[in-house]
Amino acid sequence: MDKERFAKQLAFALQIDEEKNVVRRTHLSNHGRRENDAEHAWHMTVMAYFLREYANEPIDIARTMIMCATHDLVEIYAGDTYAYDEQGQATAAERERQAADRLFGMLPADQEAELRGIWEEFERNDTPEAHFARAMDNLQPMMLNDSNDGADWRTRGVARSGPAGRNALTRTGSTEIADYVDDLLDRHVAAGNLRPE
Amino acid sequence: MDKERFAKQLAFALQIDEEKNVVRRTHLSNHGRRENDAEHAWHMTVMAYFLREYANEPIDIARTMIMCATHDLVEIYAGDTYAYDEQGQATAAERERQAADRLFGMLPADQEAELRGIWEEFERNDTPEAHFARAMDNLQPMMLNDSNDGADWRTRGVARSGPAGRNALTRTGSTEIADYVDDLLDRHVAAGNLRPE
Repeated sequence: MDKERFAKQLAFALQIDEEKNVVRRTHLSNHGRRENDAEHAWHMTVMAYFLREYANEPIDIARTMIMCATHDLVEIYAGDTYAYDEQGQATAAERERQAADRLFGMLPADQEAELRGIWEEFERNDTPEAHFARAMDNLQPMMLNDSNDGADWRTRGVARSGPAGRNALTRTGSTEIADYVDDLLDRHVAAGNLRPE
Repeated sequence: MDKERFAKQLAFALQIDEEKNVVRRTHLSNHGRRENDAEHAWHMTVMAYFLREYANEPIDIARTMIMCATHDLVEIYAGDTYAYDEQGQATAAERERQAADRLFGMLPADQEAELRGIWEEFERNDTPEAHFARAMDNLQPMMLNDSNDGADWRTRGVARSGPAGRNALTRTGSTEIADYVDDLLDRHVAAGNLRPE
């Protein structure tokens, strides 16, 4: 064992513990507390595995799973930016790039390149694995919110166009899941949980 | 899309959200709150990926990752049993078997067999993937506890033989990581955080 290499890997392993303290807007099912990034990443990793049959294109499931599990790590330093916060979204890219330098830079150089590459691939969204990981990134919170009668949308006055825009990205990864979500959004408009516009 | 099949998969996806409410004895780093099963599973899934070079035997990383991510799902119904609770451990196997019937039974039959099989493989601990997943299952909380000056051991009066017994299982998955942990345990005995016996 190269002890210096292992020490770097362990320091990274310990640092990512902080992802459990990055709180999202989504609430757990049964009107639970707010979810954190690590829980979200875990949930979509497992879902990617047993929903992989719905991917539009063949995917490497190991790559898809590690992408799901690590796609939000930069938020340890950059914070979570709410999907419908336009001001936050405008500065998120630069904050997240700096966070990636700092976080992935803790790893040995070969693994820094590998894990940073997987995160950048997710951000670029230009491979079958990224397309499907993004579908899971969208489906997972919508599923929780659906189970809570759309409360995360209703209390913020979200319009259908918000989640529908995200669902357009889901469609690149899975037409079948995007069709399901379109129907789900229609139900929540009808129930008054999403504004129709 | 087979809507009945997808409905079963989504019901399972929603049910496993409950893993986020199963609280463990381990505390997050920086003397944080107690960790939950979903966070633990996420952490060891990511660690398995970038520590895979230390596995004693070649491993299928996708199988190892899904095993890490799902190995504690039965605790949604069976509860978490503390590693050093002998009475709880005696009844855990039967409680967990019943929990597996109930939880994995929500899935379509082919996926019930697949995910239940992966959990049983972890429990039997008789494949390279199970050996390495178990090494991660042991290393992850020891790493957190080490970062907290051994508080989870010290406050419960744990003897070195407890974690050392778990580390014997780690050794089956990774000799190099088990050597590191043996040294870690010695440090905590010397510091008075673990009883020496």
